[in-house]
Amino acid sequence: MEGPELWRELGQQLRVDSVRCAAEAKSGHPTSGMSGADLMAVLLAKYLRYDFDNPKDPANDRLVFSKGHASTLLYAMYRAAGVISDEELLTYRQFSSIFEGHPTPRIPWVDVATGSLGQGLPYGVGMAIAGKRLDETPMRAWILIGDSEMAEGSQWEGFEHAAYYELDNIVAVLDINRLGQRGETMHGWDLDSYANRARAFGWHAIEIDGHDVEEIDQAYGEAIASDRPVAIVARTIKGKGVKAVEDKPGWHGKALDDPEQAIEELGGIRNIVVQVAKPETSGRTVEIERAELELPRYELGDEVATRKAYGEALAALGKARGDVVAMDGEVSNSTFAEIFRDAVPERYFEMFIAEEQLVATAVGMQVTGWRPFASTFAAFISRAYDFVRMSAISRANYCLSGSHAGVSIGEDGPSQMALEDIAALRAVHGSTVLHPCDANQTAKLVAKMADNEGISYIRTLRPNTAVIYEPGDDFEIGGSRTLREGDDIALVAAGITVHEALEAADALAADGIEARVIDLYSIKPLDEEAIRSLAMPIVTVEDHWAEGGLGEAVLAALADSEERPRVELLAVREMPHSGKPAELLAEAGIDAAHIADAARRLVGAAVSA
Amino acid sequence: MEGPELWRELGQQLRVDSVRCAAEAKSGHPTSGMSGADLMAVLLAKYLRYDFDNPKDPANDRLVFSKGHASTLLYAMYRAAGVISDEELLTYRQFSSIFEGHPTPRIPWVDVATGSLGQGLPYGVGMAIAGKRLDETPMRAWILIGDSEMAEGSQWEGFEHAAYYELDNIVAVLDINRLGQRGETMHGWDLDSYANRARAFGWHAIEIDGHDVEEIDQAYGEAIASDRPVAIVARTIKGKGVKAVEDKPGWHGKALDDPEQAIEELGGIRNIVVQVAKPETSGRTVEIERAELELPRYELGDEVATRKAYGEALAALGKARGDVVAMDGEVSNSTFAEIFRDAVPERYFEMFIAEEQLVATAVGMQVTGWRPFASTFAAFISRAYDFVRMSAISRANYCLSGSHAGVSIGEDGPSQMALEDIAALRAVHGSTVLHPCDANQTAKLVAKMADNEGISYIRTLRPNTAVIYEPGDDFEIGGSRTLREGDDIALVAAGITVHEALEAADALAADGIEARVIDLYSIKPLDEEAIRSLAMPIVTVEDHWAEGGLGEAVLAALADSEERPRVELLAVREMPHSGKPAELLAEAGIDAAHIADAARRLVGAAVSA
Repeated sequence: MEGPELWRELGQQLRVDSVRCAAEAKSGHPTSGMSGADLMAVLLAKYLRYDFDNPKDPANDRLVFSKGHASTLLYAMYRAAGVISDEELLTYRQFSSIFEGHPTPRIPWVDVATGSLGQGLPYGVGMAIAGKRLDETPMRAWILIGDSEMAEGSQWEGFEHAAYYELDNIVAVLDINRLGQRGETMHGWDLDSYANRARAFGWHAIEIDGHDVEEIDQAYGEAIASDRPVAIVARTIKGKGVKAVEDKPGWHGKALDDPEQAIEELGGIRNIVVQVAKPETSGRTVEIERAELELPRYELGDEVATRKAYGEALAALGKARGDVVAMDGEVSNSTFAEIFRDAVPERYFEMFIAEEQLVATAVGMQVTGWRPFASTFAAFISRAYDFVRMSAISRANYCLSGSHAGVSIGEDGPSQMALEDIAALRAVHGSTVLHPCDANQTAKLVAKMADNEGISYIRTLRPNTAVIYEPGDDFEIGGSRTLREGDDIALVAAGITVHEALEAADALAADGIEARVIDLYSIKPLDEEAIRSLAMPIVTVEDHWAEGGLGEAVLAALADSEERPRVELLAVREMPHSGKPAELLAEAGIDAAHIADAARRLVGAAVSA
Repeated sequence: MEGPELWRELGQQLRVDSVRCAAEAKSGHPTSGMSGADLMAVLLAKYLRYDFDNPKDPANDRLVFSKGHASTLLYAMYRAAGVISDEELLTYRQFSSIFEGHPTPRIPWVDVATGSLGQGLPYGVGMAIAGKRLDETPMRAWILIGDSEMAEGSQWEGFEHAAYYELDNIVAVLDINRLGQRGETMHGWDLDSYANRARAFGWHAIEIDGHDVEEIDQAYGEAIASDRPVAIVARTIKGKGVKAVEDKPGWHGKALDDPEQAIEELGGIRNIVVQVAKPETSGRTVEIERAELELPRYELGDEVATRKAYGEALAALGKARGDVVAMDGEVSNSTFAEIFRDAVPERYFEMFIAEEQLVATAVGMQVTGWRPFASTFAAFISRAYDFVRMSAISRANYCLSGSHAGVSIGEDGPSQMALEDIAALRAVHGSTVLHPCDANQTAKLVAKMADNEGISYIRTLRPNTAVIYEPGDDFEIGGSRTLREGDDIALVAAGITVHEALEAADALAADGIEARVIDLYSIKPLDEEAIRSLAMPIVTVEDHWAEGGLGEAVLAALADSEERPRVELLAVREMPHSGKPAELLAEAGIDAAHIADAARRLVGAAVSA
C-alpha cells in the first residue's frame, strides 16, 4: 500500500487509535484528534524528516502540536511510526504513563509542552529561526494549530515574526474543524477569514479540504517549495468518521460513548507502520566555538547600573561561548542587550514589542541546545507569564533578564515598575531568581546562569549603584553574602535595598546597634543555612510588593526552624507613582531611614522582652 | 480662528507643551507626543464628545492613549481643553503631581492606566461593547496607538473582537512615526502593512498623512460614518517640527537638549483653549434593575463542584443585579459561566480563547460602573497577567474566576493545573484572593465579590466536593472558619485541601491528637487574628506551589507576632503529571495521609522539646 491509499488507511488508523486510547482512559479529546488525522497521516508518511532515535538532532524537522489536547492523535502517530507499542499507547493519561493528557517533553519526541493554546506557533518560530540562522540545517517546523486557538493574540506575534525573519521553513497546519469547546468558533468554516489574515501578515496561505489526502499532499508540496512561511488552512470535521459525534457540539474533551461501534465504523483496528524518513544530514552545520571568558571588571566605588553590567557580561559571554544567543523586546538600549547585539550580531534576535514571542523564541531555540538570554523590562515579563509557566513544563533551560525593577526606576511610574516579578518567577517550577546589587556580582551571576538548569531569572536595576564587590569576588547561585557583621539585628536585602541597608547599618551603629547586613542576591534557591543561623531579629527589605517576594522567601526558610526570630517585612505596600527614586523609596518605607527605624523597633522589643 | 487654521495652530501648541513639560521634568517622551499632535488636535477641536465635568458619564466618548508614554500630548490636550492650568501641566512627572510619566486614573479623565503597550485597544473594545450593548449610548472609543506596539499579540485580540462585536463605535488612530525605542519598527512607514492587516480582520482602514489636518478631518468624518470598526493609519514623523530630533533615532524617551530653540522653531508658546463638545445626551439609556438575591442552596453532604456553585451563584446574582455582567474565554461549560449566559444572555459576552481581551473587556466595562465577572481556567489567567497587573494601576473594580485549580483536576495534566495563580494574584495591589472549599461558601463569596473593591479573584475546583456548610452560613471576605476545635496542632487549608485536612484530623484523633482545622478561604485579605491566636504548631496545606501561596501568606501573618509557632508548609513541589486526583494529591504530599504525618511530626517535636 502506498500513496493516497496508504494515507487514507493511515488516517483511519490514527482515528481508531484516538478513539481507543481515550476509551481506555475514559477521558481525552478524541474528536479533536480525528479532525486532524488525515493532515497528520500524509505528513508522517511522506513529508516529515525525523530520526526518532536522535530526537535532539538539529537536522530533524520539528513537529509541534499547538492543539495539545489532540494528544491522542500525536500518540497514535508514534504507534504508526513504530516507536511505541499498542500497550504503551493504551496507558494514555494514566498516573504511571508518559503519555499525558497534553504532550510534555517527558516523551523524548516532544520538544515543548503544549496545552495552553496559541503557543505552538511562537515556539515553532523560535525553532525555525534556530534552524535557519543558528543550526543552519534544512529542518522545517510543522505546527498543528486548532481553529479555536487562532483567537489568541500570541498567534499573530508568531505570524509577524515568521514573516519578518523570512522563515520559509515553517508550515502552520490549521485544522479548521469549526467547533471549539463550548460551541462554534468565531469564524466557523470561513477558511478565507484565516487565509486572508495570514496573507496580510506576509504568509503564503493555501485553502484545502483537510480530509482529501491528495489535496493535502499537494498543499504540503507547495509548502515546502515556498519561499515564505506557509499556512495550510484545512476544512476539517471534528469527530470525522463517526456519525455519533461528527461535527456535533458537546463532544469536546470526551471519550466516545460507544467506542466499539466507532472503531467498527472507522473500519476496525489497523497496524500500519510507516517508515518515517530521516533527515538527509545529521547535526548542525556550524561549529560551536569556545574561548576564554573575560568578564567585565568594575572598580570599587564606581557607580554602575546592574543592567549595564548585565549587557556587558552577556556580550563577554557571547564572545566566549558560541552557544549563547540573545533576544530582546525592543528595549535593548534599556536592558543593555544592545551591547551583546553589537558584539555578536549574528546571535542576536530582535523580537520587537512582543514579549510572548520573546520568551517563545528562547524556548524554541534551547530545544537544539542553544543557551538563550531573553531580556525586557521586568514589568513586561508579566506579559509572557503563561509562556514562562508552560516552559517549566517543557523542562526548558534558558535565561531571562528583567531590567528596571521596582520603584527605584523613578519618574516613569508604576506601569514600568516590576513589583510582582519575584513572586511570579518564584512560583515557576524549578526556577532560579537572582537579584544582584552590584556590577561585579551581576557579571559573575550572568556567567553562572549560562550553566544553570531550568529557567534562570535575573532582576536588574535602572539607576547606577555603587560597586561594593571586588572584580575577583565569586557568587554562587543559592548563596548569600554577609556584608557587615553584627549580632543585634539582621538586615536582609537584595538589589537596591542592599545599599539602603548598608546605610541603615551605619546609622544604627551610631546608636550602638550592631546590624548584620545580608545580601540575599539569590532569592531562589535561597541560602537557608545563612538565614536559619540568624539568632537575632530580622528586617527584610525589598523593592517589590510584600506578597511572594524576598521577605516571604525568608519566612519560608525559617518556618520550621528551631529558632524562629521575629521578622519585620519592609516592602512596597501602596501603589507608587512618578517621582525621584529616593522620594519613592522613602514613601514606600524601604529606604535607609525606614530600615533603621524598623531595626530599632525590633531591637527595642527584643531588649524589653 | 477655526477649522484647519485652528487645528494647525493647536497641533503646534500641543507640541510646544510636550516639549515644555518634558523639559521641566528633564524626562519624558516629547518626540512621541509630537508625532501624534495633529491627530489629537483635530480630534479635540472637532470630534471628541466629552464632558470634562462628568468624566464617568456613559454618554461620553472615551479617549485611550494606548501609547501611554505620549502622556505629554495627553496633558497638553487637557490644557488646551481648559481643564488644567499651565502650572499644573508643568508639574509633569513630579512626586506630588497626578500627571505621571504614564497616565493613570488618578487623573479624573483617564479611565485606564496605560504604559504597558498593546493594551489600549482591548480596553477600548470593552468600553465600546459596554457603550453599544449595555449603556446604549452614542459614545465612541478613540484609541491612540503607536506603531511599535502593533507587534503585541493583544492588539489582534482587540481587532478580532471589535469586528466580531460589530463595533462601529471604535476608532483606532495609528500613529505611524516609524521609530520605536531602539530603532526602526518592523514595518517602518509601510502603511499598507498595517492597513491590510486591519482589513483582513474585518476593519475599515484609511491611510493618511498624519500631519495634514484636512486629511485627518476627512478620515475622522469617514470613521464616524462607518458601520465597521475603523483604523486610521497615519504616517507621522517622530519629533515633528523640530529639526534637531525630527525622524531621528536616539530621541525616544528623552527631553530635548535645547527646548527654548525647539519652542521657537514651533512658533512659540500658544494659549489656545478649545471648547470640547459635550455629548448630546447624558447618562446611560437603560435602567439598572435590582431584585432580591436568591442564591442557590446546597444540602449538607451533597457533592457539588465549587465551579458549578460559581456559575449558579453568578446567574442568581445576574438576575438580582442589573449591573452584573459576565464574560468567559470559551470554556463556559467548564467554568459554568454558561449558567449565567443562559439566565442573562444580554449581559454575557463570549470572549473566545483570548484571555487578554477577556480581562480587558472586564476592565473596559467597569469604567462606566458595570460589575464584570470574567472567567476561565485558573491556569490561563497567567496569559493575561500583565493586564491584571495594569488593571490594579487602573484602580479597576472587577471579579475574576479561575476554575480547575491545582493537581486535583487529574488527567488533563500540568498545563491545565493552576499552581501559581495564588502567588500571582496575591502580588497584585489591592487584590482579594478567595478559595472556597464548598458550594454554599462559594455562593456567598460570589455575592460578596460583587461589592468588593479592587480585583477580586475566586479560585474554584474541578472535582465535586462535599457540601460541609449550611446554606445559611455567612462568609466574610477576610474571614476564616474553624471547622474543628483542637489544641495540639492546627491544620490550615483552603479549597480541596480542607477536605483532606478534615480527614487527617479524624486520623489524628484516633491517635489522641486534637487537631484544629481552619478553612482559610480568604487568602488575601487573611484573617490575621485567627492565625496569630494559634498557640500550637501549624501545618499549612495547599494545592499550589510552595512559593507565594497560602503557606507563605500564613507565615507573613505570623512574622512579627509574639508567638511564632513552628509551621510546616505542605504544597506541590515537584512537577505533576496526568493521573487520578487522589493519586496526584498523594504524590504531591498534600492528601490526608501526608497532612496527618506532618502533624504527627510537629506534635512529636513539640512534645520532645
